[in-house]
Amino acid sequence: MTHQDIELLQRLISIQGVASDESKIKEFIKNYVLENANTWKCKPQIVDGPEFHDTMILVFGKPRTAVYAHMDTIGYSVGYENHLIKVGGPKIIDGTTLVGEDAAGPCEVELMAIEQENGQLEIKFVGERPLERGTLLSFKPNFRETDKFVQSPYMDNRLGVFVTLKIAETLENGAIVFSTYEEHGGNSVGHCAHHLYQNYGVNQALIADITWVTSGVEHGKGVAISMRDSMLPRRSYLNRIIELARSSGVDFQLEVESAGGSDGSVLQKSDLPIDWCFIGAAENNVHTPDEIVHKDDITSMIQLYQYLMEHL
Amino acid sequence: MTHQDIELLQRLISIQGVASDESKIKEFIKNYVLENANTWKCKPQIVDGPEFHDTMILVFGKPRTAVYAHMDTIGYSVGYENHLIKVGGPKIIDGTTLVGEDAAGPCEVELMAIEQENGQLEIKFVGERPLERGTLLSFKPNFRETDKFVQSPYMDNRLGVFVTLKIAETLENGAIVFSTYEEHGGNSVGHCAHHLYQNYGVNQALIADITWVTSGVEHGKGVAISMRDSMLPRRSYLNRIIELARSSGVDFQLEVESAGGSDGSVLQKSDLPIDWCFIGAAENNVHTPDEIVHKDDITSMIQLYQYLMEHL
Amino acid sequence: MTHQDIELLQRLISIQGVASDESKIKEFIKNYVLENANTWKCKPQIVDGPEFHDTMILVFGKPRTAVYAHMDTIGYSVGYENHLIKVGGPKIIDGTTLVGEDAAGPCEVELMAIEQENGQLEIKFVGERPLERGTLLSFKPNFRETDKFVQSPYMDNRLGVFVTLKIAETLENGAIVFSTYEEHGGNSVGHCAHHLYQNYGVNQALIADITWVTSGVEHGKGVAISMRDSMLPRRSYLNRIIELARSSGVDFQLEVESAGGSDGSVLQKSDLPIDWCFIGAAENNVHTPDEIVHKDDITSMIQLYQYLMEHL
Repeated sequence: MTHQDIELLQRLISIQGVASDESKIKEFIKNYVLENANTWKCKPQIVDGPEFHDTMILVFGKPRTAVYAHMDTIGYSVGYENHLIKVGGPKIIDGTTLVGEDAAGPCEVELMAIEQENGQLEIKFVGERPLERGTLLSFKPNFRETDKFVQSPYMDNRLGVFVTLKIAETLENGAIVFSTYEEHGGNSVGHCAHHLYQNYGVNQALIADITWVTSGVEHGKGVAISMRDSMLPRRSYLNRIIELARSSGVDFQLEVESAGGSDGSVLQKSDLPIDWCFIGAAENNVHTPDEIVHKDDITSMIQLYQYLMEHL
Repeated sequence: MTHQDIELLQRLISIQGVASDESKIKEFIKNYVLENANTWKCKPQIVDGPEFHDTMILVFGKPRTAVYAHMDTIGYSVGYENHLIKVGGPKIIDGTTLVGEDAAGPCEVELMAIEQENGQLEIKFVGERPLERGTLLSFKPNFRETDKFVQSPYMDNRLGVFVTLKIAETLENGAIVFSTYEEHGGNSVGHCAHHLYQNYGVNQALIADITWVTSGVEHGKGVAISMRDSMLPRRSYLNRIIELARSSGVDFQLEVESAGGSDGSVLQKSDLPIDWCFIGAAENNVHTPDEIVHKDDITSMIQLYQYLMEHL
Repeated sequence: MTHQDIELLQRLISIQGVASDESKIKEFIKNYVLENANTWKCKPQIVDGPEFHDTMILVFGKPRTAVYAHMDTIGYSVGYENHLIKVGGPKIIDGTTLVGEDAAGPCEVELMAIEQENGQLEIKFVGERPLERGTLLSFKPNFRETDKFVQSPYMDNRLGVFVTLKIAETLENGAIVFSTYEEHGGNSVGHCAHHLYQNYGVNQALIADITWVTSGVEHGKGVAISMRDSMLPRRSYLNRIIELARSSGVDFQLEVESAGGSDGSVLQKSDLPIDWCFIGAAENNVHTPDEIVHKDDITSMIQLYQYLMEHL
């Protein structure tokens, strides 16, 4: 990763976009595209606007495959009496620093996890002032880089967004969907998938998201192709992808999980005959402020997407 | 609320409509509309028929926003050997009087909750005769009114239906969807939303349903605008609604919940780019025969909907 | 059931088709249709191809009702270090023989269920060689027939597929959908239902699947009409079906369940106004290699479908 790459990733992570409130990060990405597309191999058509809510699609040439990268993050909503309610599935860690903004301006608070008599955790915040009901809070940006690793809140999925922006540089035929709500409730992708299916016949999807380091998927061994999570991609599509990955020469690992889901799960449950497969680098410390990814896995993620978008 | 209002609400509550069996309540509402629409400011188009199952849509003028009010209620199905199976999530209370009808005519039985050795509740009924398999039972109507409160089974959501019929009196541009299945399984609203989106471009929804009195939402403090339940409405839409509510001068409370869902959740998970927000009065004794709502909250619910349907 | 019938059922069961990997069983059924349709009363149009993934539709005459039979089965995915991950909900039985195929060829292994200290079951396999990650395994075919019963893995739902192929012989107006993914994740039926709704106005569905022997549904008492499972079919449609079943003279039982789902649940949650009802023979030893069904219930299942497809 170049210095510029690191800078772009860091900027993507710095912009708040808790699920349901993705307008700022969407604007940032749109501006980035507008500023940089002239240097790309092929200039994409930008599809967005009220009919697309806070999602955005880039269409390059004649797309056969769409890459989905969700822009939203996990976080918390402010409830009553300083209580916090999860958005998505953040790991509750006492002392976590959270940031947000309400009518009184920006705020920074500390998460307090209090074990109750029944064993359940009560989640509250402590801060200098009360916060308005419904204020959305997220992990305070805290980007760290070493020789081999990048570490930060929200690798999931600002790293996926970053990867798609790198692919965009050389993409000739394909679509990139920047989706919303993936971490909580899901389905901003149905409308986008319909648009691409009806207008371009796009019936292949790749899910550019971040997965988990496990006993079967390790740091630095290459991007993970997920053979299943809670859902199973269609076998014939999966087999084609694995075969292409073998031809590509790019490092990759095969993942087999029992749990978890993605924008792919939503496509599976849509009424469209769209094949999907999750392909992404693995991270440790999932859904904490310390998500960490090996740089080589990022590189192989970019390379495999480049190869697949050309050959799939 | 006038004497006539109370009478209408009471009649709406008296008609059985357990989820999956809404044809009678739909016919009642349709007849009410046919009899009263002449006195309304604007006469709506009635959209119903086989293609709409037991749902019904009223279209006034040029609609931008649709109000969704579900007609169905919770209840029980008769299983084998006098067992009862929940429809939706009724609170199981020993001794509750349930009514229904099978081939042998109307019936009235008493619910019996028997704690089993493993701690689970067995739900059965006792009555004068056996009932046919699959018979649907609901709470016996029992309407009570005081100076400040109305109390009855099925405030959720016959009160929401009542509110929409009050809004209908002065509505010039908008749609009202009377939905089914909300309490169990959901999604009669997908088809209705498609109809309104394709024919009128309606992409804004308000969910007229009843919520819960909690530590943050109290009786008599105004209608609740739900900032979230298990799902989160899109922030930019929510912000517009709160801003309008502030301009309206109507009493309202901001709700932030971690659980619960509504027809809004179904719209969220549909393939349509439709914004939604739950706005409704709060009740106590949720999903029991004793649901109770403050009259002032009903008044502010009607007023806020009138304002929003004009300005949103 | 004739000797030929038993042979067909046995062949259907012998072909692997774990959810997500239904291409082989689909090809078998397609070939069966191509070879046999000339002897049928009416030759159907075959709808399949890339736009339909591994599903297939047969359209006879002017269809009003579609029968849905899922082709996929439950099974296991090979995880890391000889672990197995469920596909659908197989009952975990120590010693079960599983079969599959990976790049090294066919394989046969034995399931090992190991109770862990925390009480949870660890599921692994033992075999002569390691298996590739993600390999799909299913119960080894083991067909048994007595005077009154047929017993085998995957009565659910190869028996449903068999029944539809028997109905096909005399069907004049109707559609048969061979669906995928029913056991895991669901929804290959949305696209098929859209096709039939848009092109033929088909808004009635019957779900040809296998249900459970319980205290209320017994072996040999006739096909079960399910009044509900986790979902409730629309009452007016259910009432029409029960009335027709009474006129038909065919043996049937009324089922009322609290749990379970089917392709009907997916239709309920789709955006289409399609009525659905589950009608199928009951089995014992559900989701094991020993699923057992009474032959009389198979006969009444075929007869009731024949009657309903003509009169509904």
